[in-house]
Amino acid sequence: MAKQNLKGALVLVQSGGPSSVINASAQGLFDIALKHKSVITKVYGARFGILGFLKEDLVLINEEKREELDKLQYTPSSMIGSTRYKLKQPNEDITDYEKVIEICKKYDIRYFFYNGGNDSMDTANKLSQYLNDQGWEIRVMGIPKTVDNDLVLTDHTPGYGSASKYVASTLMELCLDTKAYNMDQVNIVEIMGRNAGWLTAASDLARRTGFGPDLIYLPEYPFDYNEFLSRVKDILQEKGSVLVTISEGLKTTDGKYLPEYFGASLYKDAFGHSQLGGAANSLANALKKDLKVKVRPIELNIMQRAAAHIASFTDIKEAYAVSEFAFKEALNGKTGYMAGFTRTCDNPYKIKYELFPLSRVANHEKMLPKEWILPNHNGMTDEFYNYVMPLIQGETKLKYKNGLPDFANLKLNIIKK
Amino acid sequence: MAKQNLKGALVLVQSGGPSSVINASAQGLFDIALKHKSVITKVYGARFGILGFLKEDLVLINEEKREELDKLQYTPSSMIGSTRYKLKQPNEDITDYEKVIEICKKYDIRYFFYNGGNDSMDTANKLSQYLNDQGWEIRVMGIPKTVDNDLVLTDHTPGYGSASKYVASTLMELCLDTKAYNMDQVNIVEIMGRNAGWLTAASDLARRTGFGPDLIYLPEYPFDYNEFLSRVKDILQEKGSVLVTISEGLKTTDGKYLPEYFGASLYKDAFGHSQLGGAANSLANALKKDLKVKVRPIELNIMQRAAAHIASFTDIKEAYAVSEFAFKEALNGKTGYMAGFTRTCDNPYKIKYELFPLSRVANHEKMLPKEWILPNHNGMTDEFYNYVMPLIQGETKLKYKNGLPDFANLKLNIIKK
Repeated sequence: MAKQNLKGALVLVQSGGPSSVINASAQGLFDIALKHKSVITKVYGARFGILGFLKEDLVLINEEKREELDKLQYTPSSMIGSTRYKLKQPNEDITDYEKVIEICKKYDIRYFFYNGGNDSMDTANKLSQYLNDQGWEIRVMGIPKTVDNDLVLTDHTPGYGSASKYVASTLMELCLDTKAYNMDQVNIVEIMGRNAGWLTAASDLARRTGFGPDLIYLPEYPFDYNEFLSRVKDILQEKGSVLVTISEGLKTTDGKYLPEYFGASLYKDAFGHSQLGGAANSLANALKKDLKVKVRPIELNIMQRAAAHIASFTDIKEAYAVSEFAFKEALNGKTGYMAGFTRTCDNPYKIKYELFPLSRVANHEKMLPKEWILPNHNGMTDEFYNYVMPLIQGETKLKYKNGLPDFANLKLNIIKK
Repeated sequence: MAKQNLKGALVLVQSGGPSSVINASAQGLFDIALKHKSVITKVYGARFGILGFLKEDLVLINEEKREELDKLQYTPSSMIGSTRYKLKQPNEDITDYEKVIEICKKYDIRYFFYNGGNDSMDTANKLSQYLNDQGWEIRVMGIPKTVDNDLVLTDHTPGYGSASKYVASTLMELCLDTKAYNMDQVNIVEIMGRNAGWLTAASDLARRTGFGPDLIYLPEYPFDYNEFLSRVKDILQEKGSVLVTISEGLKTTDGKYLPEYFGASLYKDAFGHSQLGGAANSLANALKKDLKVKVRPIELNIMQRAAAHIASFTDIKEAYAVSEFAFKEALNGKTGYMAGFTRTCDNPYKIKYELFPLSRVANHEKMLPKEWILPNHNGMTDEFYNYVMPLIQGETKLKYKNGLPDFANLKLNIIKK
């Protein structure tokens, strides 16, 4: 309580795939840090994530224009830049850690914010432990971010609500497009989600409006092509057109992703994860042969994480506020935590902000409760609906300039080393 | 002038691919027709286009709720339904024409509105000639619609402005996503457009904001893979990441569509047009082999014609108003025309509504002026910018309900025959 605030510089490092609101988290942090000039001597952003940090590629947020910073929360993707680089364990290779502490000392960095998903919380956790062990007084805090919604302990993650709003709205539009023709056709919409079907499940919100998918396939259950074919045939016969959503991470009973199952090979990223995408395409090709009707694969691709123009205002506000909260807690001396949400009520929706130890978040994955999934790929239960609805409420306050989104444009000059 | 208004029923038939504003044209027509009760005895919509009409699948718009009709202009796709059926020449097969006149007589249809693109204006023209030749007094009017913007005589077509706004906004978002990583990658975005690059060219609006494609490939010039590879390599070297937009209708110098060129076969629709899509995918596969970097194909797919949530308000207003205009002219005795726009000024943007003879519109295709295309796939000239900018101005007034678009929901009960 009476403890003197730790004085020094702050850095934000972003990691992993962008979302519509990761910049809102950045702005939330920058805004409050810039207001604490007596404690926070400088506010840095690492250009392109931890790899940029290791190269001392820092940008000084204090130099950015207020009017551009104010637009950040409505601007998609990571403006300061991100990376997918994974730190080794310190006992395997200490090089990166030594470099981190060297840079922290050089720039007097005392507040280290790591904004990302699962892998990022692992990195933040390792750094926090190492820096503490080395006696460099620093506050390391994780800020959650992922459209996949698969971080444990927190009720949900910033980015998920906006991606869900995009998915549900787009499925409504795609359904209306499908209904425009009285012809046999199958549209297969591929949605992000490697192991957990959180985002694909959001397509159920469209179904409940009357304009949505007929079938929803989630990675929580192994994919059986023959069962799928039979369901599609039934609906074709009944309705003439079929709209299906599938998760990119669907695996067959023998553990293969759909493109692999149908004969393609997958590229692996720096974390050893197979690069997904192409599930709808490979499934559509198989279906065309078996059905002789028009089959169209539709990948929501990176639009689902970048479509800030239809972001959820609730999500924007929370992404912003969770950073403010993390900052205040760091100022109070907390380190080694991820900030997040605990829900106290669905309706009216109420959350409180909380800290969760990084060590308990890192390398875990929050699965979609199987009991929220209706049988036979018919959608989701009311429990899921009550969970996700509050997260998509409200529309972005993004401004338009000459008919186009007026996104932030930061200078991002890398400081002299 | 003194001529008595022709009294009878009105029918709207929609045709071809939907757009974000084809329902706005429907509402424009329905609203004004419903106000003219002393002349327009009944207002019908043909369920699923001319094929539905031939089956007497008519819905009575008079029975729809006002509050749902009011949402039509903000609802994407064709709510009454569309088709791609093409009438034969009367001298080849008279069956359909005889059926049309039979139904017109049965329901006393005196106003026949055909809403569609090139092929639709051809169908409308044939019907107009045949019905007149047979002595059935009727007013046949075409209402333009196509995201492709390839109808001749009219300055532009409803649907193009909204699709352009979607394309440009989405490219800004995709560019921000691409810029989030400091890694070698190529994103190839495939945009609709068979023979004319109108819609792909709209991605140049994103480029001009600073967040847009590096290269724009239009079908106006034959596609040369080696030239493309060389350009991509240059930009990779210079910037590390490349964002390219390509038109789905790109053809190689030997006249092949990209998927065909790279070894796939294409499905043909009822008009004998090859079903496109897959150009980015096939190009990405080739590029991956030649470059050894991450290459992502992104199809804007049917989202680009269905994303009403980011429709242009100018487009919505014009789509609505052009139907009103067509109706008034029909009431004044005009028949055999398509309503459209003549631009009188770019800035401030001014248009006047005009009629163009269907016979002069049918089966022609308005090409993008080659002189509006910058050399070396670097984008578009100021002439193009001045042409397209007015068309994307203003945002839709679509309302949200529980966080999702509140689209129209018509009953569409097919009348007893």
